[in-house]
Amino acid sequence: MTPRLVALDWGTSSLRAWLLGDAGAVLAEKSAPLGILKVPNGDFAAVFRDVCGDWLAHSRPAIASGMIGSRQGWVEAPYAPCPAGFEALARGLAWATTADARLAIVPGVSCVDASGVPDVMRGEETQVFGALDAPDGTYVLPGTHSKWVTVAGGRIESFATHMTGELFAVLREHSILGRLMSVDAAHAPDAFRRGWETSLAGDDALLHRLFGTRTLGLFDQLAPVAAPSYLSGLLIGDEVRAAVRGLSESTVTVIGDPMLCDRYGEVLAGSGVTARAAPPDAARIGLWRIAVEAGLVDGGRPPELHRQA
Amino acid sequence: MTPRLVALDWGTSSLRAWLLGDAGAVLAEKSAPLGILKVPNGDFAAVFRDVCGDWLAHSRPAIASGMIGSRQGWVEAPYAPCPAGFEALARGLAWATTADARLAIVPGVSCVDASGVPDVMRGEETQVFGALDAPDGTYVLPGTHSKWVTVAGGRIESFATHMTGELFAVLREHSILGRLMSVDAAHAPDAFRRGWETSLAGDDALLHRLFGTRTLGLFDQLAPVAAPSYLSGLLIGDEVRAAVRGLSESTVTVIGDPMLCDRYGEVLAGSGVTARAAPPDAARIGLWRIAVEAGLVDGGRPPELHRQA
Repeated sequence: MTPRLVALDWGTSSLRAWLLGDAGAVLAEKSAPLGILKVPNGDFAAVFRDVCGDWLAHSRPAIASGMIGSRQGWVEAPYAPCPAGFEALARGLAWATTADARLAIVPGVSCVDASGVPDVMRGEETQVFGALDAPDGTYVLPGTHSKWVTVAGGRIESFATHMTGELFAVLREHSILGRLMSVDAAHAPDAFRRGWETSLAGDDALLHRLFGTRTLGLFDQLAPVAAPSYLSGLLIGDEVRAAVRGLSESTVTVIGDPMLCDRYGEVLAGSGVTARAAPPDAARIGLWRIAVEAGLVDGGRPPELHRQA
Repeated sequence: MTPRLVALDWGTSSLRAWLLGDAGAVLAEKSAPLGILKVPNGDFAAVFRDVCGDWLAHSRPAIASGMIGSRQGWVEAPYAPCPAGFEALARGLAWATTADARLAIVPGVSCVDASGVPDVMRGEETQVFGALDAPDGTYVLPGTHSKWVTVAGGRIESFATHMTGELFAVLREHSILGRLMSVDAAHAPDAFRRGWETSLAGDDALLHRLFGTRTLGLFDQLAPVAAPSYLSGLLIGDEVRAAVRGLSESTVTVIGDPMLCDRYGEVLAGSGVTARAAPPDAARIGLWRIAVEAGLVDGGRPPELHRQA
């Protein structure tokens, strides 16, 4: 099959790259621990050449999403404001150039929440567009900075970031809560469930509930090996409780690491919401679709769904 | 005036000591950076002797509150379960002894919240009983682990800990939020107000609101010198919003560092609650009152208020 596109998901800590053929079929794949903060001397062009060099013959088009388009990345691709559909992302592509290649960089997306506070994503928009299979829906991307994304009419209408994963890490490593935790605790399903049930059932005093991770330990009601799972349950429970409140659908699509998606699925089920898994490699699919929209490759008729925007 | 009692507020990072005369009048006062985690070799007796030795003639009674009664302290004074009044604290005194002196240690207080999760305080119960001037009321002790204490019939009926101060510290020092903050930023009143107004007005997604500290900075809507104050406002606002919900009074008593109490007063006012300041040295007054209750000193008629319990 003829190679058509080089696609990169280039984040903070790692990158993945694909050589794609007709209709976005995967011809080859690579990954490297060379996220933008780990690129020697900030020489992004060198990493791009090293990883993708043998794929770049014949001025083949290349496209990347993720933090590579941030201020700390190669070339800044300004955020596309919500509502943002395929057209806005294609129009907003930034270009990084080397002596013998060009790389299109997908813009992030920004919005403003009900309090007038801005929010941003970069990379997740591409995953959402890769997972998209209907004009409307809610997409959840768990992680360090979880995103809840509302898609309407084929466009990202709004989204909200929750610092769930990062809060878990800093509380575990740097707060008093970590002192009663085992260093290498495996997942403890009962403690995790108790955590999210507490957050779903309780009032909204997260700052209070967090302290329970300590007091349960003090009273020998929570083992050090189970304490991280309890804290994780509390935090994911709080995120889900707040996020599902305004939800009109009974099903959401969860995108990301399968194990973490399972955890979210459990908490979502506890909130009466069904979680369905996005296809693997949503980023790759999204990159292909955006490249088609931008005319970088001929994808035949683009997906129907985004024509309804 | 004849010395009657040696009283110590002996916490994690520092200690304060008073020599008290009739009716608890202050005859002398000392402080030292010798909190329980800073006592050389855990030799509490030596520190006690060094700080209070010349006050301890004639087998004068001595009493202490705070973390000195914790498992990491001198002698563990088990928690008195709620509801806990003066009687319970007096009955629960633990005793540390040296060759020539005895020190009564006030027990902490425990309760169980609506989710079945235990909560604890140690030291704050003494401050509350020092500030108490009516049988019923709500007492707020802001800090690393803020306490909201409900007193009914002269007894501590229930309370809740909020990890507000600690969360502020770990987010500032160890999370992505700290990267856009000046190291030595002074209090920025406008940013602080914007923070607590956002928390009071918004829905309850604290995990989302926290991220706004970063995005406001990214969009040049929050200066690095003002970002810590915004984060502080968000967190105190979230604590107050959750805590005042179940409040039946329109006035609460705030106990602690005057500057921090002012900040809480501002947020409480924004929630329609009046904050009144506790007398300074509530711990000292509480220690005297508990010593009277325990019969360590003759305080004449004990305060009326706790007889209504």
